[in-house]
Amino acid sequence: MLCIGLDVDLDKIPKHLLVLDDPIFEFNKAIIDATQAYCIAYKPNIAFYEAYGVKGWKALKRTIDYINDEYPDQFTIADAKRGDIGNTSAMYAKAFFEDLNFDSITVAPYMGKDSVEPFLEFEDKHTILLGLTSNSGAEDFQFLKSDSDFLFEKVLRTSQTWKNSRQLMYVVGATKADYLKTVRKLLPDSFLLIPGVGAQGGSLEEVCKFGLTGDYGLLINSSRGIIYASHQEDFAEKAGQKALDLQSAMSKYIN
Amino acid sequence: MLCIGLDVDLDKIPKHLLVLDDPIFEFNKAIIDATQAYCIAYKPNIAFYEAYGVKGWKALKRTIDYINDEYPDQFTIADAKRGDIGNTSAMYAKAFFEDLNFDSITVAPYMGKDSVEPFLEFEDKHTILLGLTSNSGAEDFQFLKSDSDFLFEKVLRTSQTWKNSRQLMYVVGATKADYLKTVRKLLPDSFLLIPGVGAQGGSLEEVCKFGLTGDYGLLINSSRGIIYASHQEDFAEKAGQKALDLQSAMSKYIN
Repeated sequence: MLCIGLDVDLDKIPKHLLVLDDPIFEFNKAIIDATQAYCIAYKPNIAFYEAYGVKGWKALKRTIDYINDEYPDQFTIADAKRGDIGNTSAMYAKAFFEDLNFDSITVAPYMGKDSVEPFLEFEDKHTILLGLTSNSGAEDFQFLKSDSDFLFEKVLRTSQTWKNSRQLMYVVGATKADYLKTVRKLLPDSFLLIPGVGAQGGSLEEVCKFGLTGDYGLLINSSRGIIYASHQEDFAEKAGQKALDLQSAMSKYIN
Repeated sequence: MLCIGLDVDLDKIPKHLLVLDDPIFEFNKAIIDATQAYCIAYKPNIAFYEAYGVKGWKALKRTIDYINDEYPDQFTIADAKRGDIGNTSAMYAKAFFEDLNFDSITVAPYMGKDSVEPFLEFEDKHTILLGLTSNSGAEDFQFLKSDSDFLFEKVLRTSQTWKNSRQLMYVVGATKADYLKTVRKLLPDSFLLIPGVGAQGGSLEEVCKFGLTGDYGLLINSSRGIIYASHQEDFAEKAGQKALDLQSAMSKYIN
């Protein structure tokens, strides 16, 4: 249930990689090889690739191809926060599900049903809708109340009525662990992607306490805490150790 | 005040372009040359480039470079609907404002203040926030009422309190023209980007009636209605004619 976020920043990766042809991919490959035994998913954060233009997009393609070829059992998430009118969402779905062959993508809900359904049309793929996010700005709109519901509750409830909603998963921030109870009332069985453990300050114990359904149902993401565990030549080995530590910490809360 | 949307779909462009090395760019170049006298802005829809992977990203880069080099007075909009936690939004801002050198980008509001402010830090750039969108799914959440405000009103009002909010523009769909009065009460001077005239059914007359502030303040977008005016060899000429027609129709509402 550990997901590792691949947020590759050239300012943060070990300096000895920068002389290589494709340092972003080489960093990812080493991290993936060292951590794959301890996680079940990888989540490249698309912004970090787009920031490097064509070079970044090529590194993203090589990274997802590497995971799909070498570790086909890993679940892959394009953390892209897309969403637009229907014909445009259909193009985003094509980009991430067909061209790049990710298993899933994160999608923003503001534009409603017809902005999300084109993603849901891909029946062997998953669409991960933003429910409650881990950042401070979540307070601005997600907690606005109408009738007796918060906006994020409306998003969860309404989206469950959409076509192919069984393929929906949801983002729920670890920093909002006390609301996981509310989320679980609305979505007893849905898979939740939980960012915000670690660098953003979320508590693993609380997330597991309120979010687990039986022994499963949570995909807990860690990015910077794992991939930047060391900035030296031993970066991959240290990332593997951190991933193992986090996986062990999680396993205490299962059973 | 006409903005032309560059939503390039290889299934819709003239067949004779498909034999060229970079048909997406060649199509855009011809459209831009033929229409630039009648518009003040171009808006590539990023999904349509991402759908073609590395090849699409290269065509996007060539397109924005071409506009910036040949027609530097044109205002450029990356229609990308991005938005994420702070450090990720900063990477998206870097991608579109630095690497690609767009003048502006469209951004989704669901994640609140700290997801938008990294874009606003670029003081010579504009951030175009989704207010009220033109699609049917806008009804799902944007019209939820809390206190006496719709969600979209809260988004407009709250965002005006953010740092560097003078660089904000807003998306307001043409299909919601009757709400433009409400929008103009909250944002008397802001520039509005209005999609949805044409293919989506919005009325130019109503948009101008309710949205104009003095002689300005609106950027009205047309995409498919202009760029796919013809699917033959005369596609650029016909696009120029359509752009001129729309510009003339708009000028009736300006004194």
